[in-house]
Parts: sequence; C-alpha cells; structure tokens
Amino acid sequence: MNKPLTSGSRLWSTLMEMATIGAIPENGSCRLSLTDEDRQARDLFARWCREAGCTLRVDRYGNMFAVRPGSKAGAPAVLVGSHLDTQPHGGRFDGVLGVLAGLEILRALNDAGVETEHPVAVVNWTNEEGVRFKPGLTGSKGFVGLLDEATVEGEGGADYFSELSRIGYAGHPMTDFEVLAYYELHIEQGPVLEAAKAPVGIVEGIQGVRWLEVELRGHDAHVGTTPMDNRSDSFMAAAALASRLRERAISLDKHIRFTVGRIEVSPNSQNTVPGLTTLHIDLRHGSTAVLDAFEKVMAETIPEVETQERVRVNARQTMRVEPVTFDETCRRHLLASARAFGLDPVSLPSGAMHDASSLATKVPAAMLFAQSRDGISHNPLEWSEPEHVASACEILAQAVLVHAGTKGRWGDESRDT
Amino acid sequence: MNKPLTSGSRLWSTLMEMATIGAIPENGSCRLSLTDEDRQARDLFARWCREAGCTLRVDRYGNMFAVRPGSKAGAPAVLVGSHLDTQPHGGRFDGVLGVLAGLEILRALNDAGVETEHPVAVVNWTNEEGVRFKPGLTGSKGFVGLLDEATVEGEGGADYFSELSRIGYAGHPMTDFEVLAYYELHIEQGPVLEAAKAPVGIVEGIQGVRWLEVELRGHDAHVGTTPMDNRSDSFMAAAALASRLRERAISLDKHIRFTVGRIEVSPNSQNTVPGLTTLHIDLRHGSTAVLDAFEKVMAETIPEVETQERVRVNARQTMRVEPVTFDETCRRHLLASARAFGLDPVSLPSGAMHDASSLATKVPAAMLFAQSRDGISHNPLEWSEPEHVASACEILAQAVLVHAGTKGRWGDESRDT
Repeated sequence: MNKPLTSGSRLWSTLMEMATIGAIPENGSCRLSLTDEDRQARDLFARWCREAGCTLRVDRYGNMFAVRPGSKAGAPAVLVGSHLDTQPHGGRFDGVLGVLAGLEILRALNDAGVETEHPVAVVNWTNEEGVRFKPGLTGSKGFVGLLDEATVEGEGGADYFSELSRIGYAGHPMTDFEVLAYYELHIEQGPVLEAAKAPVGIVEGIQGVRWLEVELRGHDAHVGTTPMDNRSDSFMAAAALASRLRERAISLDKHIRFTVGRIEVSPNSQNTVPGLTTLHIDLRHGSTAVLDAFEKVMAETIPEVETQERVRVNARQTMRVEPVTFDETCRRHLLASARAFGLDPVSLPSGAMHDASSLATKVPAAMLFAQSRDGISHNPLEWSEPEHVASACEILAQAVLVHAGTKGRWGDESRDT
Repeated sequence: MNKPLTSGSRLWSTLMEMATIGAIPENGSCRLSLTDEDRQARDLFARWCREAGCTLRVDRYGNMFAVRPGSKAGAPAVLVGSHLDTQPHGGRFDGVLGVLAGLEILRALNDAGVETEHPVAVVNWTNEEGVRFKPGLTGSKGFVGLLDEATVEGEGGADYFSELSRIGYAGHPMTDFEVLAYYELHIEQGPVLEAAKAPVGIVEGIQGVRWLEVELRGHDAHVGTTPMDNRSDSFMAAAALASRLRERAISLDKHIRFTVGRIEVSPNSQNTVPGLTTLHIDLRHGSTAVLDAFEKVMAETIPEVETQERVRVNARQTMRVEPVTFDETCRRHLLASARAFGLDPVSLPSGAMHDASSLATKVPAAMLFAQSRDGISHNPLEWSEPEHVASACEILAQAVLVHAGTKGRWGDESRDT
C-alpha cells in the first residue's frame, strides 16, 4: 500500500466545519436547497475551491463545478461530487461527504504536485433531496438534459430559478464542459457494510423502483353479527396477500426489496369488518427482469386471494423508475484501488436514488459507499466513522487518479513501488 | 295452527307511519335520542298506547312503559319492547320493530278481548344506540340499576337529564313496577337467518366482547437500502399475526367472531419500512371460556411472531363485556310458539348488544330475531320482509301470552282447538 494521497483528518475537519451551517440539535444539519443556509454552504465551498486554485463555474441549474485543469488540451473531466443540501432533519454525511471528498482530492493533488492528463472537477448538485423542490435530483437531471423544467414545483410556491438568483447562484448552460467519467462517494444509508464489517462497498447500480397500488374490496359488516365464513374482510385478505407476495418476492431473488409501507383501511372502525383496504407496495431490484417477474407473480397471486377471501382486487402501477447499472471500467478502477488499499470491498446495489443515476444515463459513472452506523440516514444521528470516511476518500482518489491519468511526481512514485 | 292473534298488516302500517318521523333519503330514518325527532316519535307512540287503553308511565331515564293490566292483583308484568331511537343513517326496523310489535300485541289482546293474569307492558328504552349519549343502552342500564349516571356524556356537551326535560320525558324512578320476564323482538342485523331461509331465530344469548390492542414495534428503515433479512417490519409482522390469530380463533370454535377492524401504521409512508403497527381486535363469543382460550392462544402466538419477524409485541385488553345467556323458560316459550306457528326456528347468538342484555342481568329475558335482508343494518337500506315481520310478531305474542297466563275468550278458544 502506497502512502495515502489524501488526508482523512483534513477531510473530517472540513466535514465538521460544513456541519456548523444550518446546525440543528443532536449534531444534525438542515440546509434545504436554495435557502440562506444553502447559500452559506455554497459560499464556503466556493471559497475552499478558490483557495485550492480552482476555477468555479455555475450552470443553469445552480450546479457548482470546481475544475482543476489537466495537461491534455481540451480533454473531458473526471467529475467527482454529490450534494450539499440536506433533509429537514438531516445529518452531516449524506451528500456532503461526496462533495467534500472531491475537494479533499483536489487539495491532495495540489499538495502532492500531481498533474493529471484529464481535468479533475468537483461538483455540488442542486436540490438532490427534493424536499423544497420537486422532483429531486433536479440539478443532476438538468445537467444531463433529463429535466422537464415545467414540472419543477417549489414548496409554498417558491420558484427554483428565482431562488437561484436570490442566493447568487444563477448560471448558464455549460455547453463547453465535457465529462469523461463521474464518481460519487456516498454513505450507504443501510446496514449491509456494517454487518459485513466492510469500511466501503462498490455500488453495482441503482435499483429500479415500482410503486404498486393494490385495492382490495370486500363488504363492510357488523363484527358481531357476521359469521367468519360469511365475510368479505378486505384487511384479512390484504394480510394474506402481503404475506404471500413477500414470500414469493424473496423466492424470486433474495436481493429484492418488497415493502408495504402505506396501508389504508376503511372504515377503520374496531367494530366493523373493513370493506376496503389499499396496500401501497414499493418494490426495488437492480434488474428489470426480476421486477417484471414479480408483477407476473402478483397477477397470479391475486386471484388465489380473491377466491379464498371473497374479495375483488385491483392492482395498478403508480410509479416506475428503471434500474441503473454502473460502468464496468469505473467499478474496476474502484475495485483495484480498494484492493491496493488492502480491502476486499463488498459489492452491493443502491436502494436509494443518487445524482449518479442521472449521470449514468450519459457518461460512465460509478459510486462508492462508506459504512453507515445502524443504517441510519435522513436523521441527525447519521454517522460514519472517521477511519471509514478516510479510507473511502483515499480509495476514491486513487480511482480518479487512474481514470484521469497521471504525469506528476506522485504518479511516478506510485509506478516505482 | 291457530288463527293469528296479531295483525301483520296493522303492524306494518304502524312501522311505516313511525318511519315518517325523521325520514331521510333512501327510506331511512334519523331519530337521535332526545332530539325533537325522538320527541315526535315518543308523542306518537304515547298516543297509540293511550288509544289502546294503556296507562303510560315514564321513569327517571325517560323509558316509556305502556301497561295493560292483568287480572292477578299486584302481579309483575311481562315486558315487551326495544327502542325508537336510531343511528344517524338508520333504517325503519332496528329497535322500532320491537317496540311496535309490543304495541301490536296490546292492540291484538284488546281486539280479542283476552285477559291475562299478569300485566303485559310495552317499553321504549331511551338511547339504546349510544350515538348522541355514551354509553349506549342508557335507559335499560338505568332501569336495572347498572348505570353510573356520572359517566353519561352527551355529544357537544348535551346533558341527558336536561334534554329529557326539554322534550317532556323526564320521569321518576319506578320502584313499584315489577317485571316477571322481558321479551325483545329485533331484526337480526346479520346474514344467518336469510342464509338458512328462516323467517325468525331464537337468540341463545349475547356474545361477550373483548377488545384487544396489539402494538408491534420494529424499526423504521429505508425501503431501498434495507435488505429483507435485516428488517424489523412491523406491518409484515402484523399481517402474519392477524392471519395466524384468525386461523387459531376459528379452530377454537367456528362460531367465534375475530375481527381486526382498525389498523394504525407508522409512519405510513410508501418508502419507509413501518416501525410501528397497532392492530385493534374485536373478539366475540357466547362463552367466557372460549374468549379466555383465545387470549391464551394469542399469548402463545405472539412470541412466535416476535422471533420470526424480529419485532416486539405488546398486547392489552381495552374492553371486556361478559356474555349473556338468555333464560331457558323464555326461550322454550318462544320455541313452542314458533313450532305451533309451523316453523322450526334457527337458534343463534346475537353478536350485537341489545337492551335485553341489560334486562337479562336482573330478570328472565329472551330475544327473537326477524330475518334481515343482506344482513344490512344501521343503514337506510335495512329491510325485513312484511311476512317475516308478521310471523315474528305473532310468535312473540303467543310466547308472551303463555308467560302472562290467559283467562279470556281467545285463550279458551286456543285450548279448545
């Protein structure tokens, strides 16, 4: 293992300083997109980037790019980043880590006097969280041309572009900026790496999502007067259907994520057999074929439950997001870098959406996850250990360096050992 | 079969005339207790009773008693009745049938010149439905000394006793009125008699009720990032528990009534694994032993689900009403009367509460059910066929007559044939 390029302690201090902006109790942060807190965070990030000698550019969507030039004239950039906005009760890591790890890489390249062939750029995407403006991932979708601007809606009537101007981050389309590859470091926000005692994981892709609404209709009836074999109990039917669907989903593929997170029962009165129950299913998997197979299994399961429970069931898809598979080359660079660092990283899918899913539609992209404590996220209690943060940043830096091509002192030293 | 004592057509006209008071769309009635509509219904009933030559008495709770004297000095009365108040979207039969069938019996006894040994009295109990004042069965509970007056609460702060005075039906405790037996005719409000093609059914008793609140605690988690085998999904645990409890309840006794009518899921968000689900169970059966056995089975089932689903479950009883078994002699009189009428009546429990459950705690009591269409009740669509209403009233009349003892012409004729 080489001497680390990046400084874990400097990155950690940078993270903790950023967390003071919009600080909330229990060590959390609240920086909703395009608020004054977001502006302060952007101003601080901009100052740091300028101090690192970078040109700072802002595009039409308020995305901020700090570019460190490469040696090859007109070469596209290796882009690293994530987002500085947070959830209302957010933590110190979600998004922020990916941006500030990028900054740490720029600083480390400067310190080591490394010259890359391709520019290395760091990006802060606007409104990833989708809290103050819908849809989320606004900035990264806009950047890759996947945003229908007419659909952007602000909470309380806030206008995205007016708010960008207000905080001083309105920019112009960056038609002259080309991306060779995109790398995003993010906390896992799940329990897989912690359970595997793995500091980092290489993300295979982002799961596709289907939202399914299943309406079960029976008959309202008096709980005291209606015998068990004379009921059309929509809730008992829903319970049977949910249990059976979960079992069959897992037997399709144990990596599937099947959740009934929202349930509506009518009339929801303790002394009435409920005549109407609606299950809202969230289904996720990295493969469209598996998602399709589940929908087929669901269509076969419904008539069984209709017959057994004397109800009528109506199911429809209410949302569909296609899975993303990350670029082979980018993942290979991350894997090689992790191995060189002495780790045998876990490969895992991302169940959550990230800006990388926008980028992956246009350029080679990949993600690295850092271990999260207790899988907690979108919560002030969100936490990643300093040593895991440091390892993740170093592994990311090495992959970026390989992808960008090195000519300088540090790169030569690396080839010597 | 003797010539019928009662007139089905007269009873039907009386029912339909009463239904015009507080009439609502789709042939329903709305006469909430102690409202102006209730007063009008009481005034009409009082006039009919006086026209039938009866003394009308009102007790402290506004219960109205129309008494037809018997021949035996100071003998206790055979009491027949139910209630004239309705649900907000009530029908023409629930309660009303039992009161007006009693009136029809008084009229028929008059027409036939029958003298009974014991008085025959008809009662209209106050606030059976428990809509405008809690608890329900107020009048009958008060009459038998089971009402804690301090607990009576009126909707919008309405005062029970002030409202009684306002509508002119405040009375005094009836310490000098003794009851030999109580009979109540009511519509079934369930599907059993219709399914059995039985015009009437003899009610074995009123089921005991237990309300059980079962709280299942898991952990909120991200639906995308949390693998299936790493979840503590309170809703999936609740679905498994509900299915298993229903199955085990039915295998204890198929006459049990097990319902999960109310469900609360938190946070009830489609993309969060729900950390907290509460099931509100209504359990009914005629036997305390069966109800106890279910609670034991539930206590054994909970740890199974806790282990399998990685949740913690907390269950408690929030309501308990003991079962009522109706009087053997009264039921035998009803059975003999039905057989004399050419019917072999179904015996069934009542899943709903009735004023008879109050009376049964103090005097011999029984109930007769008339067939309901589609088991519908508490609904304008509530319906019982005129011929079933007529048969039920006649069967009730004959049972009352036997219980009250007859001396008159009609009684003699009956013995001759």
